[in-house]
Amino acid sequence: MTHSVIDLRSDTVTRPTPAMLEAMFRAAVGDDVYEEDPTVRALEQETAARFGLEAGLFCPSGTMTNQIAIKAHTEPMSEVICEQTSHIYLWEVGGIAFHSGASVALLAGDRGRLTAPQVEAAIRPANVHYPITRLISLENTHNRGGGSCYAFSELAAVAEVARRHQLPLHLDGARIFNALVATGQDGREYGRLFDTISVCLSKGLGAPVGSVLLGSRAFIEKTKRIRKVMGGGMRQAGYLAAAGLYALEHHVARLADDHRRARELSTALTACPHVAEVLPVETNLVIFRLHDQQPAAAFLAHLKQHGIRATSFGPQLIRFVTHLDVDDTVLARVEAALATL
Amino acid sequence: MTHSVIDLRSDTVTRPTPAMLEAMFRAAVGDDVYEEDPTVRALEQETAARFGLEAGLFCPSGTMTNQIAIKAHTEPMSEVICEQTSHIYLWEVGGIAFHSGASVALLAGDRGRLTAPQVEAAIRPANVHYPITRLISLENTHNRGGGSCYAFSELAAVAEVARRHQLPLHLDGARIFNALVATGQDGREYGRLFDTISVCLSKGLGAPVGSVLLGSRAFIEKTKRIRKVMGGGMRQAGYLAAAGLYALEHHVARLADDHRRARELSTALTACPHVAEVLPVETNLVIFRLHDQQPAAAFLAHLKQHGIRATSFGPQLIRFVTHLDVDDTVLARVEAALATL
Amino acid sequence: MTHSVIDLRSDTVTRPTPAMLEAMFRAAVGDDVYEEDPTVRALEQETAARFGLEAGLFCPSGTMTNQIAIKAHTEPMSEVICEQTSHIYLWEVGGIAFHSGASVALLAGDRGRLTAPQVEAAIRPANVHYPITRLISLENTHNRGGGSCYAFSELAAVAEVARRHQLPLHLDGARIFNALVATGQDGREYGRLFDTISVCLSKGLGAPVGSVLLGSRAFIEKTKRIRKVMGGGMRQAGYLAAAGLYALEHHVARLADDHRRARELSTALTACPHVAEVLPVETNLVIFRLHDQQPAAAFLAHLKQHGIRATSFGPQLIRFVTHLDVDDTVLARVEAALATL
Amino acid sequence: MTHSVIDLRSDTVTRPTPAMLEAMFRAAVGDDVYEEDPTVRALEQETAARFGLEAGLFCPSGTMTNQIAIKAHTEPMSEVICEQTSHIYLWEVGGIAFHSGASVALLAGDRGRLTAPQVEAAIRPANVHYPITRLISLENTHNRGGGSCYAFSELAAVAEVARRHQLPLHLDGARIFNALVATGQDGREYGRLFDTISVCLSKGLGAPVGSVLLGSRAFIEKTKRIRKVMGGGMRQAGYLAAAGLYALEHHVARLADDHRRARELSTALTACPHVAEVLPVETNLVIFRLHDQQPAAAFLAHLKQHGIRATSFGPQLIRFVTHLDVDDTVLARVEAALATL
Repeated sequence: MTHSVIDLRSDTVTRPTPAMLEAMFRAAVGDDVYEEDPTVRALEQETAARFGLEAGLFCPSGTMTNQIAIKAHTEPMSEVICEQTSHIYLWEVGGIAFHSGASVALLAGDRGRLTAPQVEAAIRPANVHYPITRLISLENTHNRGGGSCYAFSELAAVAEVARRHQLPLHLDGARIFNALVATGQDGREYGRLFDTISVCLSKGLGAPVGSVLLGSRAFIEKTKRIRKVMGGGMRQAGYLAAAGLYALEHHVARLADDHRRARELSTALTACPHVAEVLPVETNLVIFRLHDQQPAAAFLAHLKQHGIRATSFGPQLIRFVTHLDVDDTVLARVEAALATL
Repeated sequence: MTHSVIDLRSDTVTRPTPAMLEAMFRAAVGDDVYEEDPTVRALEQETAARFGLEAGLFCPSGTMTNQIAIKAHTEPMSEVICEQTSHIYLWEVGGIAFHSGASVALLAGDRGRLTAPQVEAAIRPANVHYPITRLISLENTHNRGGGSCYAFSELAAVAEVARRHQLPLHLDGARIFNALVATGQDGREYGRLFDTISVCLSKGLGAPVGSVLLGSRAFIEKTKRIRKVMGGGMRQAGYLAAAGLYALEHHVARLADDHRRARELSTALTACPHVAEVLPVETNLVIFRLHDQQPAAAFLAHLKQHGIRATSFGPQLIRFVTHLDVDDTVLARVEAALATL
Repeated sequence: MTHSVIDLRSDTVTRPTPAMLEAMFRAAVGDDVYEEDPTVRALEQETAARFGLEAGLFCPSGTMTNQIAIKAHTEPMSEVICEQTSHIYLWEVGGIAFHSGASVALLAGDRGRLTAPQVEAAIRPANVHYPITRLISLENTHNRGGGSCYAFSELAAVAEVARRHQLPLHLDGARIFNALVATGQDGREYGRLFDTISVCLSKGLGAPVGSVLLGSRAFIEKTKRIRKVMGGGMRQAGYLAAAGLYALEHHVARLADDHRRARELSTALTACPHVAEVLPVETNLVIFRLHDQQPAAAFLAHLKQHGIRATSFGPQLIRFVTHLDVDDTVLARVEAALATL
Repeated sequence: MTHSVIDLRSDTVTRPTPAMLEAMFRAAVGDDVYEEDPTVRALEQETAARFGLEAGLFCPSGTMTNQIAIKAHTEPMSEVICEQTSHIYLWEVGGIAFHSGASVALLAGDRGRLTAPQVEAAIRPANVHYPITRLISLENTHNRGGGSCYAFSELAAVAEVARRHQLPLHLDGARIFNALVATGQDGREYGRLFDTISVCLSKGLGAPVGSVLLGSRAFIEKTKRIRKVMGGGMRQAGYLAAAGLYALEHHVARLADDHRRARELSTALTACPHVAEVLPVETNLVIFRLHDQQPAAAFLAHLKQHGIRATSFGPQLIRFVTHLDVDDTVLARVEAALATL
């Protein structure tokens, strides 16, 4: 029974609410390869507007939007500056090398967050032995960093470095709305700093499928061919886009609830004798480290007996994620389970 | 008004029928990146079963299923044997070189159809100057060949060459059901000849989005990482898969009607004074050549005034496609329009 | 004994003359990765001057100069227009796809020679399904075409097409000096048509190793990084460059003798009962077709018994090449051997 | 005047001695693309024998031997484990991504040296989001680590990890003879640990051009096609190979002198008031850090006034290299110059 399983593995596991489903199947659609799907068009424009950018490109996943952006910004024998645990490097199957033939300059951030001086020092000087630095990519909130948010001033400082070196700045915004809600920032402030932003609809926003890549009109025009070669050209994609539009309207503000529940989980975990440390909780991700004698696998097995699923992030590390399907009743069940461990 | 426009550009333009939409709406879904979407699973298994192959992989497009297959069968510095107007070479943005770093041996077929001796002669001998032949790829029905079908005996002969040289054989089956219906063949006969088959659900079958790549269990397992890097890993994709399942059950046999209507269009076109030649019609594609003094662009403009859209395939070439949304009433309107030209 | 073997396989097999060897080992050298080898510099400048181009890049092979040029002119998802039997496509291990991720538009030439209308028709129109045409590449003399030469007027016509479409034009000039000598043209006339030219020193010119890529100063500057990544950055390469400089001064005019001897071989072959057809001989390559009942392998075995080596170009095709080590005495021995077959 | 300049930039700058040049001049050569150059053959066999490996491949540079090895060991979407300042990552123009489409796991070593547990922890577990670890690559001596040498026991421990995980182990042995001489190890002990070794002839050994890639017979056979596509197939390369053979016989033992002189330079530098720290000197590289108020550029300008050239390795870092052209007289001049600073 769906009721009995609590899935804290990821915010990607949510199923559409009845209202979102209703919106999906009322959608007007067309052949989007011919650029004739009105709902896809509307989603791309609405998402772009939220970030003050000119245009958007709807794709089946955030991996595709990130990898298309990297491909469009770089060329073979160039280099991307990113954090050493960033999603684009760690969890996208080596796509930077595979699709773009580009090298990576991997920096060690503070829970995934880079500083402007770090970034600037990583720009390669002109030398026939070096690839050419062509892109700086940040991630906010940072997944492996436990949902950590950048201070806006730091983002602005990195953007200033990027501009001074005429380097484009990309944002992996898989969970950008979590960051906006947590910091009270407006997306349009981000659009002034970043050349391109990848926004996921299928994580905290609760849509079933899809991400939107945002950028200038010329940039997005260029990316259509890349989406096509990657196999991301879909036909009547409006059914999926409709869910995204619904989510933008109805599921952004409520992320604050996910964040509150994540903090409550953090409190419960801190009290748990098996837990050595809980990373600071800033949004909807809770990463915690177990005591050395407590392997993550065994802890996950305990949770499973209570009908709770979660993800291991290392031998002693576990990640909990709050999302649309984790309400206060569910939360209480998790807290009750933790109390028995 | 939707009613007034007749779209003969492609069989990709169809919108789901109410019954298909109802099936989509009721679909059970899960996170398919975790391989937990039951409807996607069902579609992959059902499609595989139709061709007697072990496993399937649902993807957002036929370009993705083809390019994943090519990537999985080849390696950089190898070569793919295919027809010079095949979709994988001509219309997939140079993906063979881009994704796979593989070269192409381009053969001139009879309306897209290759013969076994042609294929065998194109296999590269061992030589340090040559790429290594790693894949033979056929397309059936053949798009640029005007929906032409292979004789099964010729497919078997090519398969024999492939086996003798230990080369895998891939089928771009974007319109494979049109071929099966036209020739009265069973998909499982194809599964005995081909190592991998790409099947589109969003063309003649009328589903909004998606294709399935078929192959052995081991092969499909290997392709999951390639789909991931290409950004084809979708979450609750079961809504799309449900349309595919519905189409497999309800929209295959009816392709015979599309074929009959295509033949009727051929008759009408033959009588049209602007038309110099109509390619033999075997399935749902009708390619015709205009007289030299009649440019395709002008002819398309005429059609547009009658509310009819079609595609140019060259300075004098036009393609009409029949599909789910072209019933006998629509057909009559097209014939009436042609009669006035 | 070296004396007894006559090697007609290729003009690459020559060993330096004593005078060339003397020039090599008197060469002033330096570390060319630091751009400090004076003899390499001199060779690059002298070769560029011969073709009226600004700059040159010395590389270990003609495959490297061609592939570097293609890489520098293109980008992944673009397309190169070339002849279907051109060296860059047929004998460079699929390097166009491997290094550049670029597709090929393969045209059927007249013994390797393309016409301007053919080339123009192959330029891809703008379409999201297509790669972007980025380069036209010709080969002169054409190896697989049997050493055929372009008429200068045809080259000029292709160059006009290239310019009109703002496409760069590359020349695989592995045997460009043979073409210049045969047609009485000056290299500087070529420099006005082609953006880049690859010139081999180790074929008819008789140097042991090396080719020079020619182009504008900015283009050559860009290629240094590509040569480096391909592993073509050599240290004290001046010993090899000295041979090239010597060859430019002493071995160009004498190519006329190679051409005369090739014509004499053609006459002798025409009289040979096993030979069905000799391709027209324009320079130093002689390609001939044996009668259907005479396999190339058996014919080569006969020749071997007479101490003569040659190359098979297909089941019934053989290539003879005249060069620095084939003087009139050697020629007489070959003719005597042919007379006995 | 050549006499007056002392070049401490690299051991690549040496010119052949008269005896080496004599050996080159007398070399027997042939067309190595046809595998008919006896001197190249002899060099490949002799180098392989020194390391107890089966076969060798002569190439124009160490970048080419390294990149060929990486290409042959990996496939796109795989990953290479290496040190974060290793030559293959830092100074080969991003070739790992460019040629092989492979990702990198970058580890922080002790002056370039990795430990077995570090390497083992970097092997990626099976997961559809991850590239597949396919290669471990070490560098010995380590250039950026200041010529540091691995303890043989540590190499053996890494090799044990590699074997246990069925991963090939590559050695960038650009300066492997320096390591052998410094530690008194025999190359054949290395051949038992490493699957492939890249050996440079143009660094401490003093040959003008060339490196040899070593491995099993089957592996080297496979690499010939990769060398060809990269443009490393040379014709009469025996002139270069002869220098390598001479160097193997005459220039290995004398590396001990380079090491002694490097230690003496270290002593002199330690006494220099501008120098904050000299890295431990184990072989022929001396890396030192200047005081914060002393920029490397200014220090290099001082040296230049004394006719001494060296390389900057960072804002405050400088590298001196001893080699064949740095004898005790030259050393005394450098020490005298340092004393005046």
